[in-house]
Amino acid sequence: MKKEFRIEKDFLGEKEIEKDAYYGIQTLRASENFDITHTSLSLFPTFIKSIAKVKKACALTNYELGDLTDIQKNAIIQACNEIIDGRYHDQFIVDPIQGGAGTSTNMNANEVIANRALEILGEARSTYEIIHPNNHINMSQSTNDVYPTAIKITLHELIYKLKDSLRYLRDSFDEKAIEFKDVLKMGRTQLQDAVPMTLGQEFKTYAVMVNEDINRLKDCQTLLKEVNLGATAIGTGINTKAKYQRRVISNLREVTGVDYISAGDLIEATQDTGVFVHISGVLKRVAIKISKVCNDLRLLSSGPRAGLNEINLPKMQPGSSIMPGKVNPVIPEVVNQVAFEVIGADTTISIACEGGQLQLNVFEPLVAYKLFTSINIMRRSFHTLADKCIKGITANEDVCMENILNSVTIVTCLNPILGYEKSSALAKEALATNKRIYDIILEQELFTKEELDKLLHPKNMVTNYQG
Amino acid sequence: MKKEFRIEKDFLGEKEIEKDAYYGIQTLRASENFDITHTSLSLFPTFIKSIAKVKKACALTNYELGDLTDIQKNAIIQACNEIIDGRYHDQFIVDPIQGGAGTSTNMNANEVIANRALEILGEARSTYEIIHPNNHINMSQSTNDVYPTAIKITLHELIYKLKDSLRYLRDSFDEKAIEFKDVLKMGRTQLQDAVPMTLGQEFKTYAVMVNEDINRLKDCQTLLKEVNLGATAIGTGINTKAKYQRRVISNLREVTGVDYISAGDLIEATQDTGVFVHISGVLKRVAIKISKVCNDLRLLSSGPRAGLNEINLPKMQPGSSIMPGKVNPVIPEVVNQVAFEVIGADTTISIACEGGQLQLNVFEPLVAYKLFTSINIMRRSFHTLADKCIKGITANEDVCMENILNSVTIVTCLNPILGYEKSSALAKEALATNKRIYDIILEQELFTKEELDKLLHPKNMVTNYQG
Amino acid sequence: MKKEFRIEKDFLGEKEIEKDAYYGIQTLRASENFDITHTSLSLFPTFIKSIAKVKKACALTNYELGDLTDIQKNAIIQACNEIIDGRYHDQFIVDPIQGGAGTSTNMNANEVIANRALEILGEARSTYEIIHPNNHINMSQSTNDVYPTAIKITLHELIYKLKDSLRYLRDSFDEKAIEFKDVLKMGRTQLQDAVPMTLGQEFKTYAVMVNEDINRLKDCQTLLKEVNLGATAIGTGINTKAKYQRRVISNLREVTGVDYISAGDLIEATQDTGVFVHISGVLKRVAIKISKVCNDLRLLSSGPRAGLNEINLPKMQPGSSIMPGKVNPVIPEVVNQVAFEVIGADTTISIACEGGQLQLNVFEPLVAYKLFTSINIMRRSFHTLADKCIKGITANEDVCMENILNSVTIVTCLNPILGYEKSSALAKEALATNKRIYDIILEQELFTKEELDKLLHPKNMVTNYQG
Amino acid sequence: MKKEFRIEKDFLGEKEIEKDAYYGIQTLRASENFDITHTSLSLFPTFIKSIAKVKKACALTNYELGDLTDIQKNAIIQACNEIIDGRYHDQFIVDPIQGGAGTSTNMNANEVIANRALEILGEARSTYEIIHPNNHINMSQSTNDVYPTAIKITLHELIYKLKDSLRYLRDSFDEKAIEFKDVLKMGRTQLQDAVPMTLGQEFKTYAVMVNEDINRLKDCQTLLKEVNLGATAIGTGINTKAKYQRRVISNLREVTGVDYISAGDLIEATQDTGVFVHISGVLKRVAIKISKVCNDLRLLSSGPRAGLNEINLPKMQPGSSIMPGKVNPVIPEVVNQVAFEVIGADTTISIACEGGQLQLNVFEPLVAYKLFTSINIMRRSFHTLADKCIKGITANEDVCMENILNSVTIVTCLNPILGYEKSSALAKEALATNKRIYDIILEQELFTKEELDKLLHPKNMVTNYQG
Repeated sequence: MKKEFRIEKDFLGEKEIEKDAYYGIQTLRASENFDITHTSLSLFPTFIKSIAKVKKACALTNYELGDLTDIQKNAIIQACNEIIDGRYHDQFIVDPIQGGAGTSTNMNANEVIANRALEILGEARSTYEIIHPNNHINMSQSTNDVYPTAIKITLHELIYKLKDSLRYLRDSFDEKAIEFKDVLKMGRTQLQDAVPMTLGQEFKTYAVMVNEDINRLKDCQTLLKEVNLGATAIGTGINTKAKYQRRVISNLREVTGVDYISAGDLIEATQDTGVFVHISGVLKRVAIKISKVCNDLRLLSSGPRAGLNEINLPKMQPGSSIMPGKVNPVIPEVVNQVAFEVIGADTTISIACEGGQLQLNVFEPLVAYKLFTSINIMRRSFHTLADKCIKGITANEDVCMENILNSVTIVTCLNPILGYEKSSALAKEALATNKRIYDIILEQELFTKEELDKLLHPKNMVTNYQG
Repeated sequence: MKKEFRIEKDFLGEKEIEKDAYYGIQTLRASENFDITHTSLSLFPTFIKSIAKVKKACALTNYELGDLTDIQKNAIIQACNEIIDGRYHDQFIVDPIQGGAGTSTNMNANEVIANRALEILGEARSTYEIIHPNNHINMSQSTNDVYPTAIKITLHELIYKLKDSLRYLRDSFDEKAIEFKDVLKMGRTQLQDAVPMTLGQEFKTYAVMVNEDINRLKDCQTLLKEVNLGATAIGTGINTKAKYQRRVISNLREVTGVDYISAGDLIEATQDTGVFVHISGVLKRVAIKISKVCNDLRLLSSGPRAGLNEINLPKMQPGSSIMPGKVNPVIPEVVNQVAFEVIGADTTISIACEGGQLQLNVFEPLVAYKLFTSINIMRRSFHTLADKCIKGITANEDVCMENILNSVTIVTCLNPILGYEKSSALAKEALATNKRIYDIILEQELFTKEELDKLLHPKNMVTNYQG
Repeated sequence: MKKEFRIEKDFLGEKEIEKDAYYGIQTLRASENFDITHTSLSLFPTFIKSIAKVKKACALTNYELGDLTDIQKNAIIQACNEIIDGRYHDQFIVDPIQGGAGTSTNMNANEVIANRALEILGEARSTYEIIHPNNHINMSQSTNDVYPTAIKITLHELIYKLKDSLRYLRDSFDEKAIEFKDVLKMGRTQLQDAVPMTLGQEFKTYAVMVNEDINRLKDCQTLLKEVNLGATAIGTGINTKAKYQRRVISNLREVTGVDYISAGDLIEATQDTGVFVHISGVLKRVAIKISKVCNDLRLLSSGPRAGLNEINLPKMQPGSSIMPGKVNPVIPEVVNQVAFEVIGADTTISIACEGGQLQLNVFEPLVAYKLFTSINIMRRSFHTLADKCIKGITANEDVCMENILNSVTIVTCLNPILGYEKSSALAKEALATNKRIYDIILEQELFTKEELDKLLHPKNMVTNYQG
Repeated sequence: MKKEFRIEKDFLGEKEIEKDAYYGIQTLRASENFDITHTSLSLFPTFIKSIAKVKKACALTNYELGDLTDIQKNAIIQACNEIIDGRYHDQFIVDPIQGGAGTSTNMNANEVIANRALEILGEARSTYEIIHPNNHINMSQSTNDVYPTAIKITLHELIYKLKDSLRYLRDSFDEKAIEFKDVLKMGRTQLQDAVPMTLGQEFKTYAVMVNEDINRLKDCQTLLKEVNLGATAIGTGINTKAKYQRRVISNLREVTGVDYISAGDLIEATQDTGVFVHISGVLKRVAIKISKVCNDLRLLSSGPRAGLNEINLPKMQPGSSIMPGKVNPVIPEVVNQVAFEVIGADTTISIACEGGQLQLNVFEPLVAYKLFTSINIMRRSFHTLADKCIKGITANEDVCMENILNSVTIVTCLNPILGYEKSSALAKEALATNKRIYDIILEQELFTKEELDKLLHPKNMVTNYQG
């Protein structure tokens, strides 16, 4: 079928646009100019919806201030609502990594909303004298306030989802903490035998870690609530009426259901990307901690015969194309890689934010792209980790207990009685003779068997601190 | 249409597979286990082809050693050839970011080749007793030699293409170097006026920079030629015949047309990812330098009225949703962002490579994913930069010359005659009085006008060093 | 003079120690084992004092629980107090970068305090049967709770000082904001002329940015208040009495004057380094923003003749060994470099924290070293920036105003009246003809001169948003 | 004793300088302006010597071209020689991290050489009309060619030393490879039991890895030989005579004994820091690989009772302040931390190099500081690793052999006979029944005991690939 086209023009000239496309000339130019990721904005539906929410809040405000007619307002609001409902996302064709500080994303939205609004009104595409992408959809706005505001709304929502994923993961650790609460095992510091603990305590640790991160993400959400909508080009509010700024924030709260507030200094807020560096740092924190947990899981399940072999991870797939029966810890391994990706993204974001100049940071598209991606891959991987790994972990209790009985450093609990030097001498002898510390102590008649059984009972060692 | 299924099993149990799919149970398990990027291996056709080349070289070798029949060999070779020709890539469904050190990628290839070979022989899918993914396609192989070898072949080819892109970019700089060879301008150090040069020299610099990088990439290709094919599981060559290793490398050279060689120590080569860190470092080097060039282009074209305004970048799209007539340096801006992405990828790769343990680095899938992506986005962005920016740059000769005439630091060229202190005093006076240094020197009658015109002639200043 | 020695031994053997040294055999072994930075702990006096505070709190608690005699307690407390007062810091000779998770630092403190306490009691060095480094000074403790607790106390205090430095820097920006409140200038986005603002607004932005960071650092201090003292080896509190943990925290609050609290899960708190990643991320945020400000300052002061030349930085030193009269923005340049150092430190810290295994992160010495150093160099550089740069900045008002009058994008303020397309056409003509937009509008008789003077008055453009 | 002062002045004014100091006013200004690291250039004696070598080569050239008298030349050369011999380094007081692109370092050298040369001639300090820091010492030079040239000379020499350290480390691995050549052990992939190898092969791997890095460092040295001496301010060679450039390189070769060559394009060479990014990437590569080795050593020596316990590291110091007898792998741990420091330095260097603008990268002081420091701490730590760890490693042969006998995946070697599926079934049964694979095969009468003993003999498995 032959494609049909319509013509649009801007101050750089004319271009043919597919007749039915909702986007216009500026979107088309941008999609031709930026071909980097081979993906499009539609990769991030939450972001597209957030832009539509901003546009809706602005249209409502412009209407209230008498700058849009009822007809214009209604059509624009309907178009925005449809996008918020998930429609027309395929019309957001620009590459998320783009030059121009997000102008192409903003104009893509302006053009799609304008043409859909025109359609609602029964008008032809591109009849912008009725509803114009810049004059009406972008009225009282600039990319420089719309775009970062939409990024923040998106992050606020994505972090909400990320917290859910972390809660799900935390609960899976908590379940194991209860299941393994009586499994005694050696604690290890520096990969060397230390003193006893329970496997339940080990998994509880992971639950506590994750929970702490949920709280830090909550703090981030608070920081995200400060937006610069109304700042327009550089924060001076040029092209807005005096009453606009306060009203548009109020409408944004209405539209989103989130209590966004206006930044105290709009010029500062327009150029400052500190909040994105901050959030990236916290995402990295989350990634690093989960990566550490995955490293532990791989260590503890190492073997099965020539490793620590304290726990068994569920077998997800044959582990080797050559070694029969080998099963690998593939789920923790993939989560590690997600973490490394997030850590690298933080470097990228740091450099992008440092590179901002004067009244704007032109690299916000990359910053948004990396933050959105980091959260998305973390969410997917955390669910995978909970469902395909943590929930199916089992303990090798015998191995765990044998390690304690063999341990030399359990002599630590005799420190307060024997002193560090005598205890050291016992430890040294145990290592030299390859005997159990328990037997050596009895040989030396330092304690009766009864006393020793009580002193060295692992259960006593792991619960002292709660006593 | 109702989907039909066939059943396959492995030592973990049975699974239903779409009847016509070429992949099998292990691929399916992997695609269920790993859902991180929402993309698949088919994103990287060069990589899929490289794996098929490795498989082909192995099949030829196994046949030569008498371990495959003519019928098996012919079917396998044909299947490999088809994949090398770009067919069946949609059957490579596993996520490029995966646990298991690439086993899922290798098994995906093994299963697709086995089933396509069976089809060629007129046999049903999954009749693996005839051609088996592990026993025949993966014969004398392990993921641990096939996978890194295929990554290296891929990188070798992608770097070849990247060099082409850089040559194209270099040539665009060289053209401008010639075009602008007579445009005199102020050189700047630390953003402060320094001494004169030509705009042609400035662009020549960029061409030379890029050319240097091409040479460094060539060095990388040499490093990539050392592969560990034949190492199998950990480098000891288990499951291979004595003559296999030498022959398979020979066949690989035949199949690829590139003179690959065997690593000197296969155990080392199987666990060492140094070459990937190295290449990532060189890619970062390339990115950093291009980013610096883009920063320069944005600086030199800043304005048009309140900036340096020495050059004009081609106008690619309206630059603002609010500011009429504003045009931004969107192409350099997007290339900067590509560079930041590559720098961040280097952090990711570094951590992944540091995390290798004992006989294998399990994070190679991430390393490959990041390296492939970095090269791909660099290539696209370098073509964009050449075509949509460099080629259309024009010079504002008047602005450039005016800057020289106004300059104070051109007094530098009188150092050898007047000494640093006298010259400093002249400079100080020029700055204090806001006069031209030329006029002050004449006022003080330090030189005749004729002498001074010769001494201060910018042309003389920019060519001394070639004299 | 011939050195005299005394002999100490541990379970690895004997060593000679300088007769008058307060440290003992374990410190000496460590100083021989770790020779990396060629510096010693005494580089960080706040850290040494923090360790002494922890030791003091522990001694008080052990005394209260009846495990130290009055004589022992008094001597130990006096020794700790002396260290808190800054004495004996030269006895802390171990390298801050060390293996062993801080054990060498802890033992260095234990040995110095023990020997100084012995001296106070009139006893000879090394008569550890009276006061023993492990049995008495380290009583109820492990490196694994003492060391991270001391790091947190140190960071809490260093961040307090860093906030002071930032306040000092903020105030210097605020002063300039007031001084320059009437200096009109062009705002720039993407280095391209945007719309007018005041130079005062520009500097106010920096003050607001810095102030925001002070608040984020305050949040960090709250996170630092959670310590794991009482956890001992792995968090189970082995070797402590039941009442110890609550009391030691109480004593720590007393000794430090800061309301430290016990971590909710001591096993988690002993292995988790999330707070250090977090703080590093916030320090990086601060660094990135200040670096951006320094980039701006260098841009705005570029020239003096062939640059933006809107402001003058104070002249701190001749800028060139060859170019007379050249003065460079050396202070912002050095602050940029400090920022880059802090950003790199964040990478180091991230990797170190990811590398923790099981019940302990063995890389805490590096983490502490990098965090302490980052804060120290930031503090020094921020004072330098305020005193040697910001305070002496002057404005070139004429240059600033000329840029506005020449500007094309001031047509933005006519958008609401003329629409985006008409305004674009005017801008295009201005650029093509190299005329002022003001003149073109008058030529086209779009407004009267009186109307236009009012519409285009820069003062109106920069204050709208406050209206 | 009361300090006495002399007065110097520059175009910014006068300052008092300590009477006997060899440095002058510009050094003093710089030392006041930059107080960041609390260290001075004297931290890097090789760097100071390199600057003196450059100055010497320049003085010789200026003399040859008739621009210095015999008397001046002789005094300058003698002063340079003394600095090359290690004298007067305490006079290099400026902070290595400094603004001004190294001008302060260059001027520090110019002033010290000038005043020492004056002293040699029996003249008073500061009598610069006889020998002037700028006019004579810096004649035909700029910081912008002297400084990067001196950095390259320094790096060339430091890398030479680093290669020595790596050779020393490699040899220590090689010795262990021979010592352990008959110790059979399980190889591990993904921390899971794989197939047998020898401990000798494991250590040989490390030797090979290190050797490969030595070759890559050699490549770096080649890149470093291209210098820009003669470029002066921006690469145009302003202030130099036509014959100067060729001669000064020739003299530099003479003075240093290294075959330095002139960069092909001096403008490019003056602003390009690609070689520093490159070298940093290679240093990172070295660090990452050694860090991986240290991770392995810590894993293999984990235990002693509840870990892998295949090897014993020498006991360097008591490992715990609380756990008697505990000994930790402190040497690998500290080397890991050095590696993390080097990786972070690479981030810092990357950002610094990306930030270069136009004709110069002003952040070279930081780049040099980080590169020098990275090499220094690597060298120290590699010697420590060889001497205090590798050389003393012993093997637990029994543990290693027991792991093989218990292993399930040794069934791999039966793949070619039994096929992957039958082998998998055997493996599955061994795991389920907790039996040895050897016993199961005999039970099933798949082979005779004699056949099996031959097939499963570990020696055969580890040597196949050499057959």
